[in-house]
Amino acid sequence: MQKMVIVGTCAFDEIESPFGKTGKILGGAGTYIGLAASNFDLDQAIVSIVGSDFPQEYIDILKNKGVNMEGLEIVKDGKTFFWKGLYHNDLNSRDTLVTELNTLADFNPIVPEDYKDSEIVVLGNLHPIVQLSVLKQMNTKPKLAILDTMNFWMDSALEDLKNVIAHVDVITINDEEARQLSDEYSLVVAAQKISEMGPKFVVIKKGEHGALLFEGENIFFAPALPLEEVFDPTGAGDTFAGGFAGYLASTGDYSFENMKRAIIHGSNLASFCVEKFGTERMQDLKPDEINQRLLKFKALTQFNIDL
Amino acid sequence: MQKMVIVGTCAFDEIESPFGKTGKILGGAGTYIGLAASNFDLDQAIVSIVGSDFPQEYIDILKNKGVNMEGLEIVKDGKTFFWKGLYHNDLNSRDTLVTELNTLADFNPIVPEDYKDSEIVVLGNLHPIVQLSVLKQMNTKPKLAILDTMNFWMDSALEDLKNVIAHVDVITINDEEARQLSDEYSLVVAAQKISEMGPKFVVIKKGEHGALLFEGENIFFAPALPLEEVFDPTGAGDTFAGGFAGYLASTGDYSFENMKRAIIHGSNLASFCVEKFGTERMQDLKPDEINQRLLKFKALTQFNIDL
Repeated sequence: MQKMVIVGTCAFDEIESPFGKTGKILGGAGTYIGLAASNFDLDQAIVSIVGSDFPQEYIDILKNKGVNMEGLEIVKDGKTFFWKGLYHNDLNSRDTLVTELNTLADFNPIVPEDYKDSEIVVLGNLHPIVQLSVLKQMNTKPKLAILDTMNFWMDSALEDLKNVIAHVDVITINDEEARQLSDEYSLVVAAQKISEMGPKFVVIKKGEHGALLFEGENIFFAPALPLEEVFDPTGAGDTFAGGFAGYLASTGDYSFENMKRAIIHGSNLASFCVEKFGTERMQDLKPDEINQRLLKFKALTQFNIDL
Repeated sequence: MQKMVIVGTCAFDEIESPFGKTGKILGGAGTYIGLAASNFDLDQAIVSIVGSDFPQEYIDILKNKGVNMEGLEIVKDGKTFFWKGLYHNDLNSRDTLVTELNTLADFNPIVPEDYKDSEIVVLGNLHPIVQLSVLKQMNTKPKLAILDTMNFWMDSALEDLKNVIAHVDVITINDEEARQLSDEYSLVVAAQKISEMGPKFVVIKKGEHGALLFEGENIFFAPALPLEEVFDPTGAGDTFAGGFAGYLASTGDYSFENMKRAIIHGSNLASFCVEKFGTERMQDLKPDEINQRLLKFKALTQFNIDL
């Protein structure tokens, strides 16, 4: 079984949307990535930091999904990272109402000894220096290092970001961020430029408009599943990344052909994530539901033209 | 060979974009639909109206592609419909600078006798009363009536629009217009509601984000081909519709499976249309280029997951 180590936040989220509001609930990139990846056969660990206010119950949710939580630092008397967001009517845009870094401000991730030879490393959206420090702790070069990031780091820590980008095999980034990072409007040209910064594979996430995978001249596209109702987009991008990485870890095949399947698995899982608030849907997801929906993806995208 | 009759504008367009400006060039929905459909094996006619300022050379472009132009009324001393638009930097939005209806204001389409038994009728974007009058001239019920429309008619002639929608088999409409017409945000729900108005098949065009085909519970999605450079989006939607309709006419198969192929053919042709100003790229398009690009669509979207 292949090992995968994830660095990413475990957090409190509070969400307001046209469909209602939550109290403080379980959130964070690391949480969503781990939950999504837990649907595949792999040995994974999350490296993160929380305060003593983070309920054991939340940690157990991940442990019960087979996620190793040794790398979760619990800061005594510390407070957990908190994010509060308000979604607008179309759910495509949101305002951040509150961001309290709390313990995350001093996060110094320590990769558990047993995971320093992981085949896959997933660097969830964090300060690029924190992401790089995880890569540097690995005893063996991972077969695949996957980086997620956002425009905030392009604005505030571009050189550090470019440095960590140079060290990874895959970058996942949304369309607007790809344009900002490359200074190119065309996503095809943007992906080429970003690939020149280091990553062999560039994944551009377009939210409800799907995701693109680039490797050199090869391009693959997966749509988001058209849904009757989207309830809460929080965590969809991280769920996509977790499904993508988890599938690759479970297969050990890093070819473009297999990455295509990984993109579909990621998109498939993300389509569940948005159906309920927070992690709720991801917690009770069954293998049968996943397979049924993969059939929907096939029906949605596959055609037969003789050429 | 199946017959197809198209009603739609033959026009002068003038386009300004970040890539330059054109003088008055050949444009119009009927023109783009006919050019796209001419890549398939069918017997097609355009019903339209122009003024005597419309060059014979433009009519010959369509005739040389095998389009019957008997239904083109040329108004002596009349002026041809003229549209001038300005595209913004991202090419996703545009301002209409000039609209001169001219002869189009009194357009009373007459379907040529030979085409009153056409298997396919394509109702390009026009006043819904004009569209309906074409349907009523048919001697035999067409196997497939396809309607394109836009928000302008929803604002100004909603009841007439609903009336013609009730008489067609397929509607093509963009995402924002689908939302406006159905008063639903979710495109899945919007398509269901629009289908209840009459059309068995609903095609929602999302521009650079692709197109969705709905029939009851069945959904198919085709992306737009990611391009390094989009030069001029004018006519892309009509080219898509023309490719869709032309492929269906050439095959005579109106099943959902074949409609999927038609959506791919439409998307494929639209990807050429945007590469040059106006109709330029569509005029010199070769079968070999079309087939090569279909292979790109396959590579872009097809995957293999065993379930």
